[in-house]
Amino acid sequence: MIPPRSQAPEFRRDPVTGRWVIVAPERSLRPMALEGAEPRHRAGREDRPCPFCTGQEHDTPNEVFAIRSPGTSPDSPGWQLRVVPNMYPAVREIGSTEGRSNEGFFQQYPGAGRHEVVIESPHHVANPAHLSDDLFRDVFIAYRERLNAHAADPALQYVSVFKNVGAEAGASLGHCHSQLVALPLIPDLVHQELSGSQDYFMRSGRCVFCDLVRFELAENVRLVTETPHLLAIGAYAGRFSHETWVLPKLHASRYETISDSLAAELAGLMKRLVSALDRVLAEPAYNWFLHAAPLRSPELPHYHWHFELMPRTSRPAGLEWGTGCFINAVAPEAAAVQLREALEGIA
Amino acid sequence: MIPPRSQAPEFRRDPVTGRWVIVAPERSLRPMALEGAEPRHRAGREDRPCPFCTGQEHDTPNEVFAIRSPGTSPDSPGWQLRVVPNMYPAVREIGSTEGRSNEGFFQQYPGAGRHEVVIESPHHVANPAHLSDDLFRDVFIAYRERLNAHAADPALQYVSVFKNVGAEAGASLGHCHSQLVALPLIPDLVHQELSGSQDYFMRSGRCVFCDLVRFELAENVRLVTETPHLLAIGAYAGRFSHETWVLPKLHASRYETISDSLAAELAGLMKRLVSALDRVLAEPAYNWFLHAAPLRSPELPHYHWHFELMPRTSRPAGLEWGTGCFINAVAPEAAAVQLREALEGIA
Repeated sequence: MIPPRSQAPEFRRDPVTGRWVIVAPERSLRPMALEGAEPRHRAGREDRPCPFCTGQEHDTPNEVFAIRSPGTSPDSPGWQLRVVPNMYPAVREIGSTEGRSNEGFFQQYPGAGRHEVVIESPHHVANPAHLSDDLFRDVFIAYRERLNAHAADPALQYVSVFKNVGAEAGASLGHCHSQLVALPLIPDLVHQELSGSQDYFMRSGRCVFCDLVRFELAENVRLVTETPHLLAIGAYAGRFSHETWVLPKLHASRYETISDSLAAELAGLMKRLVSALDRVLAEPAYNWFLHAAPLRSPELPHYHWHFELMPRTSRPAGLEWGTGCFINAVAPEAAAVQLREALEGIA
Repeated sequence: MIPPRSQAPEFRRDPVTGRWVIVAPERSLRPMALEGAEPRHRAGREDRPCPFCTGQEHDTPNEVFAIRSPGTSPDSPGWQLRVVPNMYPAVREIGSTEGRSNEGFFQQYPGAGRHEVVIESPHHVANPAHLSDDLFRDVFIAYRERLNAHAADPALQYVSVFKNVGAEAGASLGHCHSQLVALPLIPDLVHQELSGSQDYFMRSGRCVFCDLVRFELAENVRLVTETPHLLAIGAYAGRFSHETWVLPKLHASRYETISDSLAAELAGLMKRLVSALDRVLAEPAYNWFLHAAPLRSPELPHYHWHFELMPRTSRPAGLEWGTGCFINAVAPEAAAVQLREALEGIA
């Protein structure tokens, strides 16, 4: 039997909760070099070369951004970092959200957007903690550059920037990379943070993240580490154990405005944090993701960009999927102690 | 260093989103008979007997409910189904939520509640599809009985009823079982459904789930199967492929009111559905969970109890954790076709 709908990706909204889902049948074609039972860092399937390694530029779509040596040509060697469209996109570039449909009981519209991969090293480095400081910094510069590029398309509302490390965390290739999914809507969890922080601002006149920074510095029990302009803290109500958030000390809602020097400071901090996680949790699978103001926002007084670094230390089960209530088996204060001690041995 | 907080479980609320998390350090002591790399159905660790098998009643806390042969004694053989407190509870019975604390920046209170295990067979059956029809029915009767028992404690607000099958779905023991976590609060996802369905009711004067039943019966593209009083449909905006919801055709918000005969009809339908999933997806890991009106609710005109059956067909990654937007790689209409075809071969 032929499935009764076309295979183009589409956004669908759950009629009860309003939750958005992307139905993207093309994703099922994605080859998986990493299997569930594999160790976290694997060098890719041996029957073919890694498409992210230098010399294999023809295995990816054409680059949309690169940091490369002067005089070298796009889609050829000579790069330190490349951004390319995802071969198996969750959303498809169709230029606009026309065709948005709201008739009938269900709400859906075409899965328009952009899905990109940030390839973080020309050579096959699988553990982000092993990237050089320069390559690590370039990642955080590339995030900013791609956010600015997507901001130029008025159909896009939000860019999700994230990294999956290890099969358990959803990675399908071992070579260090991040992803960006540019969406024509503001997704649920970002909306929850925006509206929760706005409520707090209406009540108190202050940014909840600025208050969090002040409170954690003063209480000093979940503080993992700090740099001149940034703070890393154990998440007070983390979903996973050792969940760590990184925030600027000074208020800033839009990541697009980050300076080169702050990006380098952020990269140094993130590299130390993932090295500490590797020590404390024996190279766990993890995700990190950026939360920041939407593309069309002015600077928001109530919101504050931050990264959430989430080691996959447990497997959400029926309780978590059914209620949204997570069980965290390590007190964030105890996890912060472990991470602080591990950081003492890291340059 | 000594962690600065006690190890008793506590509820914590994220100050930005309001999300509840249970910090339960005792859970980390839980022995895992199922490891990530194991096949779905494994008979337990060989170095010790399964604590859920008949003859091992002394390995579990004392039963709080059982379906057993006349003349047999509690915590001894002769049972078909037992409900026992979880040895490694996510919440701890302390009788009340006194000590609720709301001072300062963060909100927390003691992790009071009850965490129970429903042991579904005296013998070591690992695949629910292999339980007899009678044992399968008893599970849905036991859910009702425990909901009614917990309703007698005024400190409890909601009971999460769920099942984890396979290590990938969070199960730590292979022997067929379900769990109940009775909570002193209404968890986030249930609250979202209650408020989403109330909004719909305010706008339309109708229950969104009743409309869903009518719409899916009329459109007949995501309908998987039906019985006289129940419907199984592919979730229109399912987070995972082949996600299937089961609802009563007639409005009912409280599962506690289910009759013995409807429980048997439900059990028969659920057994056929998990058998169909086993065929289509080669015995996937899965969860099912009940969503129903909270314990203190009267019958609600806008809400409708239902089960969500969620095979773990993909691994949520940075996009899902960072945005709440899931990628489903199989159109629910195509999945419904596959499940309908598989059901044709199942009695």
